[in-house]
Amino acid sequence: MKAGIKIADQWLRQVLEILYRKRDLSRGEIGESTGLNAASASYALRYLLDRGTLVKRAETQSAGRRRREVFNLNSEAGYFIGVDLEGDRIRFALTNFVGDICCRWEVPLEFRQPLDPRVVVDGIRKVSLDPIRRDRILAIGVSYPGLLDVEGRLIAVNLGWNRCPLVQELRTVFPWPVFLESDKHSCIVAENWLGAAQGRRNALFLIAEGGIGLGVLLDGRPLSGLHAVPGEIGHWKILPDAPDLCNCGATGCLEAIASSPNVVRQYAELCGVPKEERAGIRVVDVFERARQGDAAAAAVLQRAGRALGLALSHAIALLNPEVVILGGDLIGAEDILVPIVLSEIRQRTLPVSLEGLKIVISSLGLDIRLKGAASLAFRKMLEDPLRLRSMCTLDPAERSATALQSPRPDSEAALPGELVCS
Amino acid sequence: MKAGIKIADQWLRQVLEILYRKRDLSRGEIGESTGLNAASASYALRYLLDRGTLVKRAETQSAGRRRREVFNLNSEAGYFIGVDLEGDRIRFALTNFVGDICCRWEVPLEFRQPLDPRVVVDGIRKVSLDPIRRDRILAIGVSYPGLLDVEGRLIAVNLGWNRCPLVQELRTVFPWPVFLESDKHSCIVAENWLGAAQGRRNALFLIAEGGIGLGVLLDGRPLSGLHAVPGEIGHWKILPDAPDLCNCGATGCLEAIASSPNVVRQYAELCGVPKEERAGIRVVDVFERARQGDAAAAAVLQRAGRALGLALSHAIALLNPEVVILGGDLIGAEDILVPIVLSEIRQRTLPVSLEGLKIVISSLGLDIRLKGAASLAFRKMLEDPLRLRSMCTLDPAERSATALQSPRPDSEAALPGELVCS
Repeated sequence: MKAGIKIADQWLRQVLEILYRKRDLSRGEIGESTGLNAASASYALRYLLDRGTLVKRAETQSAGRRRREVFNLNSEAGYFIGVDLEGDRIRFALTNFVGDICCRWEVPLEFRQPLDPRVVVDGIRKVSLDPIRRDRILAIGVSYPGLLDVEGRLIAVNLGWNRCPLVQELRTVFPWPVFLESDKHSCIVAENWLGAAQGRRNALFLIAEGGIGLGVLLDGRPLSGLHAVPGEIGHWKILPDAPDLCNCGATGCLEAIASSPNVVRQYAELCGVPKEERAGIRVVDVFERARQGDAAAAAVLQRAGRALGLALSHAIALLNPEVVILGGDLIGAEDILVPIVLSEIRQRTLPVSLEGLKIVISSLGLDIRLKGAASLAFRKMLEDPLRLRSMCTLDPAERSATALQSPRPDSEAALPGELVCS
Repeated sequence: MKAGIKIADQWLRQVLEILYRKRDLSRGEIGESTGLNAASASYALRYLLDRGTLVKRAETQSAGRRRREVFNLNSEAGYFIGVDLEGDRIRFALTNFVGDICCRWEVPLEFRQPLDPRVVVDGIRKVSLDPIRRDRILAIGVSYPGLLDVEGRLIAVNLGWNRCPLVQELRTVFPWPVFLESDKHSCIVAENWLGAAQGRRNALFLIAEGGIGLGVLLDGRPLSGLHAVPGEIGHWKILPDAPDLCNCGATGCLEAIASSPNVVRQYAELCGVPKEERAGIRVVDVFERARQGDAAAAAVLQRAGRALGLALSHAIALLNPEVVILGGDLIGAEDILVPIVLSEIRQRTLPVSLEGLKIVISSLGLDIRLKGAASLAFRKMLEDPLRLRSMCTLDPAERSATALQSPRPDSEAALPGELVCS
């Protein structure tokens, strides 16, 4: 690098961001994607190669075309911890610098038992046991259900948490920065970084499983709202006169008709299954019975699918997105429930609002929130100039600027769970 | 001003913007509101005073406090034309540099007759007849109903327009820049600049009159969407099983239940008024009869108010705004229809989504879209550096940079209308 050239944070940020989103990019493609001029892109690439943050390799191309050099993030340049607090299992992952999961840990959530925050601490310890990787962990990202109060404490009914100071607790135990993002944001941002919403400015992500919510990306950013509870469509009174009683105490809510537990409930009611025998039925069982021609299962899915389609129709008319991504339990019902949703959307929405709109199934699968949480940690580290610089080196001395000392290892398995490392 | 200081466009923009929004500000208040440091604010104020764009006066204060100097825009420094194409009358205004309307013109829209674009040209001519003011007209802002196609042509059912190239037509006749904004945007932006959404980042504006729409301000900006049709809640199937037939051909739409013509229709149906006699009934008549205890009128308003409240409940849960502003015909029914809307919102929305939320009636009145259109023209002129500089002087030579020649006067009143100048 020429003496006297100062690398702008923005150049580094843009190169790291584009290489996290896309792999095997040439110098020209990096310039084109970031908008950096050739000199700035070259300086940034050289700086990051010198520090071991990037790797470069020659890609042999087909005969007659010249070899091209492609750049990638060095997958071992740093690690992130992703935590997903939604669903019936709490999930933890250690992801490498390119976002691939290299170690995971899951803990079943006990039904109707408040979650002990020490389970979260323990899970993070589990995925950070490897001493070499642990030294290079940069940050923790947490995808949470529910909402935050003004002091950043978590209120989450399904975890039994009423104002749990999770971030403060994690910060007393671990030396890494901790970032939180709501589950709906995690999904839409993961899709924006890695999935069907790449390159989109306006996108929606429908989660339909235990609860129902909408992740909203507007103008390239997740919708923030006044106090971080946007996307709460689960309690839209989508069939205002329906008798279905919701967890919230009201009737007619979308969740009371179309959430997975309520799909099971309606099916069991139609079939006369007594309450005590319903625990064994899962939503995938209802999907399967509908596939086999069970009329009760088909009727329940018809009602749920139409309610979901009507809700999406409303969101599409209001927000005019470019893409709608269907996730959660809908992923497992592409053949049996999704067609009903799509048909209802087409029938209920003005044609002009559907112009140019794509509706797709999420391809990020069950890991979407884990990947979203880890990519949150990556993104947040890019935003802070000091942290950004600490990411751009493998040298522990240079990294110490952000106090990334390794915590005291503590490998006692205090709580049950399941560890898979690759 | 010290030699060698270059006034940054951003300083001028911020000072002009804050003085358009608020009046009688001291030097300190301008610094505080804009975030400019004392030196930058002083340079910008001096520059604008020298060119006649601002005026300064001493304000005598109560005994014991020292006199303070306050700044204002020079109301005659420039003029804007606002056009409102929504409603049963097309409305035109000439506003001065502080946004006050100094001349207006209205043309009734003939029911079910396509609007001749020459009516718009003619209306703009009418409010720009005064030769002194005409020389200082800076731009035209148009608030439009309906939507724009990809080539910027207007599609508006109530005007009978299918891809009308209005901007191109106005640009061939007038020498001023022409800016378009959808009616919903005009309202929410006018409220953000001048009304109940001042200082807010997330706000909704419900228009309920001939049609129903929602103006959406998110993160300080009007929602844009994929191709400029967001806020289209009029065709939400808010009562999906209701038999009411909408103009769009579907049933159950919010508009079919709660737009003003449909309030009248339901009332007439309940009372058995034959179709040919319904034209004489206005929505304000239904309001008045409900006030007098007419049970049919009360029932219709109950149904319309609940549908509007349910729709707002959905929008609040999804977008988590700080303020919801009620406009259109609701302004005239604060006592009789608004309480039903509010009660339904409270009943249908999760309490957490209502925390911190304010719901108010628009105080900008019927002129909201005219003022919104004129303020659009002001805002757009600020955005362009060349136009910004042309706004900052009364010197015609300096202004010529943006080719603001006066058009040839043409005062023949080709079409009927009503002119009021102050």
